[in-house]
Amino acid sequence: MSAASRARKVDSRLEIVVLEKGRDISYGACGLPYYISGQVKNEDDLVTYTPEFFREKRNIEIRLEHEAVEIDPGRKQVHALHRGSQPVNIHYDKLVLATGGAPAFPEGMAPDNLSNVFTCNNLVDAIRLREFLEQSRPRNAVVVGASYIGLECAEALAARGLGVSIVERSRGLLGGIETELSACVLKRLSESGVSVHMDSTATGLTPGPSGRAVAVQFGVGDSLPADVILLATGIRPRTGLAEAAGICLGATGAIAVDDRMQTSVNSIYAAGDCAEAMHLVSGKPAYLPLGTTANKQGRVAGENAAGGNARFEGIVGTLATKVFGLEIARTGLSTEQAHKAGFAAETAVVESHSKAKYLGGGPLLAALIWDVASGRMLGFQMVGEEGVAKRIDAAAVALHARMRVEDLLHLDLSYAPPFATVWEPLLIAANEVRKKTRRR
Amino acid sequence: MSAASRARKVDSRLEIVVLEKGRDISYGACGLPYYISGQVKNEDDLVTYTPEFFREKRNIEIRLEHEAVEIDPGRKQVHALHRGSQPVNIHYDKLVLATGGAPAFPEGMAPDNLSNVFTCNNLVDAIRLREFLEQSRPRNAVVVGASYIGLECAEALAARGLGVSIVERSRGLLGGIETELSACVLKRLSESGVSVHMDSTATGLTPGPSGRAVAVQFGVGDSLPADVILLATGIRPRTGLAEAAGICLGATGAIAVDDRMQTSVNSIYAAGDCAEAMHLVSGKPAYLPLGTTANKQGRVAGENAAGGNARFEGIVGTLATKVFGLEIARTGLSTEQAHKAGFAAETAVVESHSKAKYLGGGPLLAALIWDVASGRMLGFQMVGEEGVAKRIDAAAVALHARMRVEDLLHLDLSYAPPFATVWEPLLIAANEVRKKTRRR
Repeated sequence: MSAASRARKVDSRLEIVVLEKGRDISYGACGLPYYISGQVKNEDDLVTYTPEFFREKRNIEIRLEHEAVEIDPGRKQVHALHRGSQPVNIHYDKLVLATGGAPAFPEGMAPDNLSNVFTCNNLVDAIRLREFLEQSRPRNAVVVGASYIGLECAEALAARGLGVSIVERSRGLLGGIETELSACVLKRLSESGVSVHMDSTATGLTPGPSGRAVAVQFGVGDSLPADVILLATGIRPRTGLAEAAGICLGATGAIAVDDRMQTSVNSIYAAGDCAEAMHLVSGKPAYLPLGTTANKQGRVAGENAAGGNARFEGIVGTLATKVFGLEIARTGLSTEQAHKAGFAAETAVVESHSKAKYLGGGPLLAALIWDVASGRMLGFQMVGEEGVAKRIDAAAVALHARMRVEDLLHLDLSYAPPFATVWEPLLIAANEVRKKTRRR
Repeated sequence: MSAASRARKVDSRLEIVVLEKGRDISYGACGLPYYISGQVKNEDDLVTYTPEFFREKRNIEIRLEHEAVEIDPGRKQVHALHRGSQPVNIHYDKLVLATGGAPAFPEGMAPDNLSNVFTCNNLVDAIRLREFLEQSRPRNAVVVGASYIGLECAEALAARGLGVSIVERSRGLLGGIETELSACVLKRLSESGVSVHMDSTATGLTPGPSGRAVAVQFGVGDSLPADVILLATGIRPRTGLAEAAGICLGATGAIAVDDRMQTSVNSIYAAGDCAEAMHLVSGKPAYLPLGTTANKQGRVAGENAAGGNARFEGIVGTLATKVFGLEIARTGLSTEQAHKAGFAAETAVVESHSKAKYLGGGPLLAALIWDVASGRMLGFQMVGEEGVAKRIDAAAVALHARMRVEDLLHLDLSYAPPFATVWEPLLIAANEVRKKTRRR
């Protein structure tokens, strides 16, 4: 919808058609955990714009329940099926693929018609889960995956009074929070009654009576009983349509695009969770499906499809979430990711406070990841009860600007007792790196 | 104390002596309004480090009640008076001037022994004011000056139940908040029962019985009755000692320093509220006395005085405060300041929300100031109930990096429903500028 809307702004006379497989468009997918918890009462509260809005205000034709099944780049046609059976052919001059992502399931973990196994990938998923919670009143939940979706859903389930366990394959949370910061989050999860099994690969779902799963198997022979199971095991790009049309995928498995969001096939653009984005720190294409990136890519694809010339330089890997009263945010590469990307990465972990202690400032824990060889900043992460998410933005901008740690030392960041201490965590961390470097 | 501490870290064998005119060192001056309101109970809560700490842990000799009265750069000596009478001569190899700032009073507005006229420049001032408030129980206060100190003190006085009026010479708050944002703050002040007289120059204090002032005169013949008067009419650098020693002042009237904090006289450094700082947006030295800058300059001065080689590039004019539940923050130049600095400045004002509407996000008002000629970002300001101060930091970093508005469009800033909307105000404002530019 971002692409369609931007295209309309560029050219008021274009014919713009959107094919949507399902019945929902333009809703706040990041709000789904709050719908599951009940904090957001009605599904309508998540809807940003209705199909009528797009039709009437933006002259964009939306065809719901139209699944695009084939692209013919030679004839410039898309073949779609309306309600699964009625064939529709549409000609295009320019095509934007925004097919999004689908839940990825590890081997043995596909939900396969088990009625109490859920994902949180779209509004339909969330409505189904909430109905199940309200009607079946399950007591124990197992969440597979400690991604931000897994953690936010774990909190939503706990808020509904369920006993919650999390099973996570890796040793880190959110795909790469540094050990010290992860420990802080794990402590909070534990204090909140959530049982967490890290470094534990879920291997299967134990089927029970009446089409339900009764447990999640993990590790070597362990299992956790469950009345309801949520799979937050990652997102894979939906690329089938693109692949069949001969569009190249990148090394990440998502659709390869240039900075104009153009694919390898002429006149076809891709944007959002189906596409890669250039990671400006590693310098390599990455697959980090997030709403912010999807919105930006959509606008750029739409602008270019309509004859404009916009560019999307890329991402720096910014991510934020809040679980059980703790804000967690990261930007750039983790130490491990930085090593994999070939940097001589080191890490400084520092403690600070969210505001003046005499006004009740709570602790903040921060990690700065930098490249010893060049002095370049590679990443920044933070955990704390308040003021974390928006603090990470200063670090994100510094990554965009390719700042060295030395450039961070004296950044003129805001200070007043109600929301900061004189030295921001980013500056404290930079000073810590300076000290480490001097000692050599 | 920052300079002394950093010097100690550079060289453990140096003899380091600090001369302090008063009896307090190293306290949180920015917390004074919260001490006045009573939110901070004891003055000790504001003390960061005691003289004993510096003596014992950092081997720094602190001579309290020693006023430096003359510098002899030829002999490398400082002449001081202990308790106003006992002369002391101290030799230095390197000298750091950290004489700070003093309240600046417009003509006719000096407090001249009037017992109910106060400033909020240091701990002694604040203690005197709080004692007066607790003992004399005044009912009406007039605050002269709508700087951040003026506004914070107005809130502190209102919190103690006083009726508060503010008289401000200019048309803007905080020395240059854009009109639309100022209006938002003025509305809040008015709703909080504070009567504000903008564009009104205070011209005199009306003396009354028993050494008190009874009113503040302003404009042409207006006056406001007052039981207590707070003068927040700005800070001037304390430069007398430096000037007498032949040290050059800059165009701002503060001590001119290079990026090593060196003054025009060899072996003498200056840092903090007595010194200028390079404004990285205007490219000219500026006088913006703030604790964050003072701390950074102090460290750099101390490092260099001890034989190191540190540099302080400069400031971008970041400032934040919170009054009556409203956060106000700015960085860079205001439109007016930008015009004065020779830029073809324009302004985009946009509205957004602090977080997802379905989680109760409140309104944010933001202004982006940019140079039409170069496309360069010049400033950013924001007002709102939450999430403002730390949001301004991303803009501050962008100013350090000399970003153009075009560079802001796709910054990878954090998003999650509990603390942001998908498009950050900074990005919305950049997009607004893009649209404005296209229309031409």
